[in-house]
Formats: sequence, C-alpha cells, structure tokens
Amino acid sequence: MKERIKVAVMGYGTVGGGVCGVLTEKSSLLGLRSQGEGSVELKYVLDIRDLSDSPVARYWVKDIGAIVSDPDVDVVVETMGGVEPAFSFCMKCLSAGKSVVTSNKQLVAEKGEALFEQARRSNVSFRFGAAVCGGVPVLKTMVYGLAANSIRGFAGILNGTTNFILTKMFKENASFEDALSAAQRNGYAEADPAADIEGRDACRKTAILCSLAFGRHVYPDEIPTQGVTGVTDADAACAAAAGGSIKLIGWGKKTDGAVYAGVSPMLVPASHLLSHVDGVYNAAELHGDKIGSVLLYGQGAGRDATASAVAADVLDCIRRPGFDPAYSWAPSNGERVADGGVLPCRFYVRGTAADPEKAAAALSAALGTPRFLSRAGAPADELAFVTAQPAPKAHLLETLGSVTAFEALRIFPVFEG
Amino acid sequence: MKERIKVAVMGYGTVGGGVCGVLTEKSSLLGLRSQGEGSVELKYVLDIRDLSDSPVARYWVKDIGAIVSDPDVDVVVETMGGVEPAFSFCMKCLSAGKSVVTSNKQLVAEKGEALFEQARRSNVSFRFGAAVCGGVPVLKTMVYGLAANSIRGFAGILNGTTNFILTKMFKENASFEDALSAAQRNGYAEADPAADIEGRDACRKTAILCSLAFGRHVYPDEIPTQGVTGVTDADAACAAAAGGSIKLIGWGKKTDGAVYAGVSPMLVPASHLLSHVDGVYNAAELHGDKIGSVLLYGQGAGRDATASAVAADVLDCIRRPGFDPAYSWAPSNGERVADGGVLPCRFYVRGTAADPEKAAAALSAALGTPRFLSRAGAPADELAFVTAQPAPKAHLLETLGSVTAFEALRIFPVFEG
Repeated sequence: MKERIKVAVMGYGTVGGGVCGVLTEKSSLLGLRSQGEGSVELKYVLDIRDLSDSPVARYWVKDIGAIVSDPDVDVVVETMGGVEPAFSFCMKCLSAGKSVVTSNKQLVAEKGEALFEQARRSNVSFRFGAAVCGGVPVLKTMVYGLAANSIRGFAGILNGTTNFILTKMFKENASFEDALSAAQRNGYAEADPAADIEGRDACRKTAILCSLAFGRHVYPDEIPTQGVTGVTDADAACAAAAGGSIKLIGWGKKTDGAVYAGVSPMLVPASHLLSHVDGVYNAAELHGDKIGSVLLYGQGAGRDATASAVAADVLDCIRRPGFDPAYSWAPSNGERVADGGVLPCRFYVRGTAADPEKAAAALSAALGTPRFLSRAGAPADELAFVTAQPAPKAHLLETLGSVTAFEALRIFPVFEG
Repeated sequence: MKERIKVAVMGYGTVGGGVCGVLTEKSSLLGLRSQGEGSVELKYVLDIRDLSDSPVARYWVKDIGAIVSDPDVDVVVETMGGVEPAFSFCMKCLSAGKSVVTSNKQLVAEKGEALFEQARRSNVSFRFGAAVCGGVPVLKTMVYGLAANSIRGFAGILNGTTNFILTKMFKENASFEDALSAAQRNGYAEADPAADIEGRDACRKTAILCSLAFGRHVYPDEIPTQGVTGVTDADAACAAAAGGSIKLIGWGKKTDGAVYAGVSPMLVPASHLLSHVDGVYNAAELHGDKIGSVLLYGQGAGRDATASAVAADVLDCIRRPGFDPAYSWAPSNGERVADGGVLPCRFYVRGTAADPEKAAAALSAALGTPRFLSRAGAPADELAFVTAQPAPKAHLLETLGSVTAFEALRIFPVFEG
C-alpha cells in the first residue's frame, strides 16, 4: 500500500485532458477506490506542444525520459493516438516496470502482441478498456464479469459517428450526405471522416474484441470490412418497412474452432435491442456459454466518458500491478479469420427490375417466397426484399445471378443476434 | 500464488448446483483466469439433505464445522437462500478468514452491515454480484467499471418474473391472471408468487443497488414499494397508445445529499431502451457523473447465468483476497430514504368518468392539456391520459381531487431516464 500513487499522462488532447481532469478532481476518491486509502495523483503530462499556459503547466514535460526514469511513477496513461511514437513510448514505460493504460485502439489492434510480451516480461499491468466503446466497460465485462464463460461471440454498434448518421437517415429520412454534414457540425465526425464511414474504426475495435474473446491476436486487415458509404435513405426506409433498422455491426464468433469476424451494415430486426440503439451511442452484446447474452450500452466516445474508462483502468493497475494473463491474448498463430460469407444467414436485398412484377415472381420461385418491402416514394423499378431462408452469401449471389430480370444494388445480412 | 484453490459451496439447490457444475467443468480455466495458472476446485458441498446419491456425493458434508475448520478452504459460496442459517454460516466463514461469495439478495439487503464489518475485521473478501440481476454484472460494473464516477442514480427492470408477466400482457393482451399462470407454467414464477408480484424481490435488489451506489446501508423497508398486481391489460394497451410500455422499475437517486428510491410500475417511453426489455430479461441503467449513462442487459436469473456471476466473484476473491472497501458500504446512519413523491415527474393516469367529455375538459383545464389515450375495446366511461407537466405526486393528487367528474383508478409515474 502506497500512500500516494503517481500517474503520468502522455498526450494532452481531448481524452488526455479529460484524464488529467479526473485525476486532479478525484484524487482522494480514486485512492479510496483503488486501495481503500491514500490518493492517486497526476505527476507528469507529456506533450510536444507548449503547455506552459495550460492548466497542467506544472506537470508538463517534453521528454519521455523524465517519466521513464522517475521511480515514483507507478502508472503511465497513453492518450496520444496513432501507432508512433505511442508504441515506442509505451514499450519504454513497460520496460521500466511501469503499468500502462491506453485509450488508443489503433495501437492495441496493431501492436498488442509486442506490448503484452513486454508487459509479461516486466510483470506489469497493461490495460486498454477505453479503446473499445469508450466509457462502456465492454472489455472489462468480458474478462472479469464473464470470467467463468467461454466467449462464443459478440456483436455491436462500435462506432458512434456512423450510428449517428444511420439514425438520422432512419428517423429523419436524411440523405447520407446531409447526415454526415450534421455529424460534422455536431463535432461527432472528423473533417476527414474516412476512418469512421469506411468502417476502419469499427474494424479496429472488432479486432480487439476478437483477440480478447478468442485468445489470439486478430489483426484489423484480417477482418472483411464494409462501411456505411453504400447505405442510402432508401435502405433506411426499406429497413423500417421490414420492421427494423440498418446498423453498422462489428461481430465475431468462434464455431468449431474457427474464428469468423466482420464489419458491415446489417438489417437489425426491431425485436433486438441493438435496433433501438440510436445516435452516437454504442452497444455491444457478448455471448458466453454460461451467461447467454449480455448487452452493454452507453457513450462510446467523448472526453469525460473515455476518461472515466481510463481512470477505471488506472485503478485496476493499482489494485493488481502485475501482468494479468486474463486481460491479454496470445500472438497470432498465422491463421487468418475465416470468411464469414460461408455462415448461412438471411439477407436484405434492394435492386432494380424493368418489370418488377415479373422479377418478383422469378425471385419468389428462386428464393422461396422472400418478404417484399414497399416504401413511400420508391421508384417504379425498385424491388426490395428480405430472404426467408438462411443461406451462405455465395449461394444467394448465385441465385440472384440466375434471375436475369433483377439487378441487386444492395445486399446486407440480417442480424440474427 | 497457490496451485490449487479450494472452494466450498453451502446449499445444493438450483444455483448451488450450477456453481458446482461450473467449478468442476472449468477448474483449469478458472485457475488460468484468476491467477494465470493452477486450478480452482470444489472441496465441500454443504446441505442438510442427503446428497449421497447426487453427482457431488464425494464433496457432501452436513456440518459447517468441516468447512470452517479446514485451512485448505479459500473461498466459501453461499447459495442457501433466506437469512438463517445463511447469515450465521457466512459469519463463521468470514471469522475463520475465508472469503465469502453469495447470491442471496435477502441476506445482503438485510445483513450487509454486519457481514461487511466481519469481512473488514478478518480482512477477507465478501462479494455478492449474483444478488442483483443474476448473471448480468451490474454491481461489478458500478464498483470497478465506473470506479472514477460518483454514482448519481440508477433505474432498472430487476425482476424477470414480473417483466415476463407485463410483456405477455403488453404483447398478447393477456390478463394479469393468465400471464401469471403462463409464468408459473414456464417455471419463471414460484407457486407462491407474492415476493415477485408484490415487488419485494425488486425492492431487495433496489436496496442493494442504493447501498452500493450511495455508500450507506439502505434497508428494504425504507423503500416505498408497489408491485404489479394493480396493472391490468387495459393499462398495457393504454401504454402502447402512449408509445411506451408499463415496466416495474426499481430506482434510486441522490440529489442534494438526499437519497430517494422506489419500486413501482412506470410508463416507459419507447425512446428509452428499458421499454424494449422484454420477457424474463433484466436491465439496469447506471448514471455516473463522468460516464453519463451505462445500461446492462441480460438474463437476471437461471441456474447457469447466476452460477456465472458467482464464479466470477470467486475469481475476484482469489485475485484480491483482502477486504475491498470499494465493494462495500457504511452502516446505515439512521436517516431513511426520502419520499420520492416530492420529485416532480409526469404521470400516466387511468380512471372513469360518467361524462368523459366533460371530465376531459375539466382535466385539460386543471392539468394543462394532458395527452389523452384511446385504446380499442375501452369501456365508454374510461378516460386515460399522460400529464404534460412534471409535478410532485401530491400536487397531481390534489388537482385530480378537484376534478369531481373523474375518478382515478391507476396513477403510474412516467419514466424519464
């Protein structure tokens, strides 16, 4: 038991600023919660920018050496973002025997293997709860709450920006472009929104969830990823007609020893809670062999929510300073994620047909009475439906190819939970 | 680090049997997850019944002395239910320096003060995650996931039996009696369902959540509790007309230093996730000053789901065998929970009026244009509405009392999140 636990924060951006705020504001509470007494105190804030006029001026250092060489620093928080220099700095801290907490999903998704290896060797704690779903303790629940379970799979709305966009399209019939502009105006989307709308952010979180759930490093480039740029207000309206909504879902499952994963827009039926998760909120469902399903929902981003997750991890490092094998994964075994397209599911399909009646009859014959969807204001040649029988995607594509009267424009899986 | 952690289970009922199953089935996994190696093993099963023909025959003991006096036992699980002898047995185990895990909400709600006191004195762990929402790690999330937050409040669907009944009334227009029978046929309700339908079970869980959230023991008898026996299919239909559903909500909040809490049916608007929590599922929303809201959802009861939560607590006891002040609360200070009726909210009201048109006009004048609700098959003298302006309940009752043309039969708060 140490009376005053000292923390260094690397990177004074939005999240780093939030973490500094929590640490200074709640120093005694954090001491009480982690050890039953004492305090948790900010000692350094590392940034290449000049912080001499900031509220953390007295903690400001420019050189990582100051943190690494100070035996008084117990825990280092990394909130710089990106892979370098965050990776080198974290490795130095771990090597110096300091526990490390990060909110950086790219770092963990791409460099987790090496970071765990060093943390194990130094027998220190390495934690990254804020990297997935921000403030919502999804990773912690998986590792500690469901500790007695083998995780069978997970699925979630892991990116708030795209969920804001899809919600706006769904609830207000906004076009994709208008919804994206609104997200940017509200500060939910970057000026360059590519990482969000192309699904890369959700993909990184999916990779982390997969790795932790199934125990070996799954890299983002293994995961088939489709963003939301192909979703239109027409799809949103068709989804409503089908009694559901379109959501960008990151998912993973383990069946017969193989790991499957993907990120793509899906039609989520209203009977599932995920279809009711709106706006910038995140939600993730975890499936365990004992618990069945558990769903967590909350703010996936934002300064204070993310800082809340980082601070909780800092406390875990204090409570359990040694390496925690349960909160880690093994190196990749070289096997890649299996192609989820082979898993049978139902599909939402929207396309065009010069003669919709004839096409509908042909599709009904070929697919076994799909459920056709109608929406107000649809062009005369639009035909949209949900297939009735689960089938692998290749099988669906083959069948659709055989119906020459119909050309498919959108094919999204139906989420089955 | 101990190679083989030994566990005793007191009470071989549904939950106890599930715990024994997890411990024997997952002995090595639990060792790995708690310590990184070794095993977690069942050593004793205590029951007054003859277990000599059961799968746990070789662990069976009838005398608590066998467990208390065996220095090899690290953790004792209590799944007997009720206050005595569970309380005496737990106290003996804690006094003997053994960590204790219980799924017994009545025990924790009524005897938590004394149990914490003994755990603190013996410096051992006392955990009870399974006592609220079964397998869903609500308490663990509050204490560890939101460790950097001050908890402002919570609200949840804490009883699966009544949620099954209300869902059946809502989705199938079943009467209360038919829905209760269905719950009994499906094994979701006891032959004597009083503790569930009168709200006592939800009240105990609310008391535990309040105590942990606000840091001092809140006793069940402090919490104004109304069950679901007063809810009819007419209310379910009116709630649907209002764009929501009736749910039994257990809630607590701390405002200006005062703790408010209650259990009662509420009209939950469809815009809130809780209105979509159906069947025997549980959900709880926690409000923290940093995180905003987090909601957890899953199976609140059942053998395996509850055993999952108990086993996770056993692992926490192994990881951190000493007393954890963060996972406890102070004794009651004698102050009782404040009357939630003073907090302004909107209300759902259903009643009768000999002349509904005249009554509606009078109510509109008195209440400031409430939203009137119509449902198919309503008797001619029925009048139901949702008030427009939040007001304390006493104020509403006074106003309703002044409208002599209308007699209120049901008054439920509108859930505001």
